Amino acid sequence: MRHSGFTTLILAATVSAGAHAGSIWQALPAQPPIPADNPQTPAKIELGKTLFHDPRLSSTGTVSCASCHSVMEGGDDHRPVSIGVHGQAGGRNAPTVWNAAYHSAQFWDGRAATLEAQAVGPVTNPVEMGMADLGAAVGRLKAIPGYAPLFEKAFGVGDSITVENMGKAIAAYERTLITPNSPYDRYVRGDKRALSPQQRRGMTAFAETGCAACHAGAAFDGPTRPMGQANLMRFPAFADNPYVVRFKLDEDPGRFASTGKEEDKHMWRVPTLRNLAYTAPYFHNGAVKRLDDAVKVMAKTQLNVDLDPSTVADIVAFLDALNGEFPAQTMPRLPATPGDLVE
Amino acid sequence: MRHSGFTTLILAATVSAGAHAGSIWQALPAQPPIPADNPQTPAKIELGKTLFHDPRLSSTGTVSCASCHSVMEGGDDHRPVSIGVHGQAGGRNAPTVWNAAYHSAQFWDGRAATLEAQAVGPVTNPVEMGMADLGAAVGRLKAIPGYAPLFEKAFGVGDSITVENMGKAIAAYERTLITPNSPYDRYVRGDKRALSPQQRRGMTAFAETGCAACHAGAAFDGPTRPMGQANLMRFPAFADNPYVVRFKLDEDPGRFASTGKEEDKHMWRVPTLRNLAYTAPYFHNGAVKRLDDAVKVMAKTQLNVDLDPSTVADIVAFLDALNGEFPAQTMPRLPATPGDLVE
Repeated sequence: MRHSGFTTLILAATVSAGAHAGSIWQALPAQPPIPADNPQTPAKIELGKTLFHDPRLSSTGTVSCASCHSVMEGGDDHRPVSIGVHGQAGGRNAPTVWNAAYHSAQFWDGRAATLEAQAVGPVTNPVEMGMADLGAAVGRLKAIPGYAPLFEKAFGVGDSITVENMGKAIAAYERTLITPNSPYDRYVRGDKRALSPQQRRGMTAFAETGCAACHAGAAFDGPTRPMGQANLMRFPAFADNPYVVRFKLDEDPGRFASTGKEEDKHMWRVPTLRNLAYTAPYFHNGAVKRLDDAVKVMAKTQLNVDLDPSTVADIVAFLDALNGEFPAQTMPRLPATPGDLVE
Repeated sequence: MRHSGFTTLILAATVSAGAHAGSIWQALPAQPPIPADNPQTPAKIELGKTLFHDPRLSSTGTVSCASCHSVMEGGDDHRPVSIGVHGQAGGRNAPTVWNAAYHSAQFWDGRAATLEAQAVGPVTNPVEMGMADLGAAVGRLKAIPGYAPLFEKAFGVGDSITVENMGKAIAAYERTLITPNSPYDRYVRGDKRALSPQQRRGMTAFAETGCAACHAGAAFDGPTRPMGQANLMRFPAFADNPYVVRFKLDEDPGRFASTGKEEDKHMWRVPTLRNLAYTAPYFHNGAVKRLDDAVKVMAKTQLNVDLDPSTVADIVAFLDALNGEFPAQTMPRLPATPGDLVE
């Protein structure tokens, strides 16, 4: 087994401290980071929930944020790549919106520094929601009379239906999409019966194999970084193995596609490992259907480790312990479409 | 103004009894009819809500019942005709699912006698949800492990994931989708301040014009009939007027398309008039965008009456009084898609 210096450091902390306070293991904080310029308010969260579920933010009126990020399921869409307006397929697997608020950057390549910036991106993506521009989206909202009072309640009177406020409201809603109290969280907080013996073996194997080097922190999405700075990893790091060919893991150049910088080739934001039971298929291209395969492929492509079947089963059992509680949500009431707006 | 004998009868009742008990005006009953072989239970309703919102009942996994019948809005999809799998357009305007439980028959042409029968229809319609057959839909549900306990809770242990139970659960959920306590309902129950003077004028004009001949009953969907028997009307009844051409009202032969019987040509089930503010555009082809136009067109095509603008405004004001209260609903939790099921 080959470990980087960083991995060895993580391992040392694990072995010495186990799951006690001060260790690498952290329960999900009760609230994700809230930016100073976008405080949470009930009116803003309700508006954000409404916008998130409104298909009128797409050119055809058929695709909402929730179409590809269904909060009724795993916050994604149970398919390799998403389907947007006019039945078009996207290029990458929809990342879950659950616990996205803990990520230090958004999108698979971390190109959005905030949830606010991310939230409005898909609206104008031609294969996602397909609006001509964000002005058209704002125009659509202004033409629905029921939105004005919702924006006013959230942002005050005046010209409050703006792209900025749309992003802020959706982001505020997304900061409520957290899944606390997984068996892992209860274990870390002291309930030693919360994990089965196999899950505890898997927890140790997860650290010893080196997974925690990248999948660190409460959301298992990378070591702590300032908000706005992406936790990036090279994927695949070991490209010379059959999994890379079989699952086409190196066909997408990752962050390079958005920055054009050579050093960003095959760099990806570290995804969360929470609620994996709800987010198959896996990886940026959704090429791997099963969680046990995903564990094997990651160990081989990132750490050059061939895991034996029992270790894979233990790690999968541990990952199952990261499935949290989905809070009950009331459906939003979408304002009525006036007849004049019908196309 | 020309009235049929039936209309005159209605008028007489209206004039003599006004909005008092025993009149033609009825508040929405607290519960719609519940069939003896499908009693309401919380487990069944919850399962039905889950199925109603599950896009995996469509071939592409992108279209649920809620896609075209959004209960977060007016129970329809704010477009002339719906868009199903692969971006295909349907042939008729999506009828609202709100208060559909009061209808004596379902679909625009009344071809389904029950909500149970209607609920599974769109699943295999090639331009709606596009499943090859209902067996494939049941197979899909059986392949999602999280559905078995939900069906068992609703229907008991055993082979409970069936087409019949799928229809029963969705129908049970739809029987909770009612909008009580509209201003009209409060007025009929005795709160005389619930309607404005203009709305009361519109109420009288609605009856005197003859609208109530077809739009009778608590749901304004036709005179009381046994469940299973559709309230049918000929539409357009007076085909020789410019509206018919302009809005292509006679291009679809209505019930004839499903029965092939000559007498069913241009016969349609009477739609509800509740919550029209949320269900633009109007008519079976969604050709009319505005409610005032819809009132004018109906008066001319069905009663051969040319309404003056102030009467139209009064009737529209009355119809606005039929917008009821949408009950708060908790979002269902859709069972996870196992990776093996990903296509």
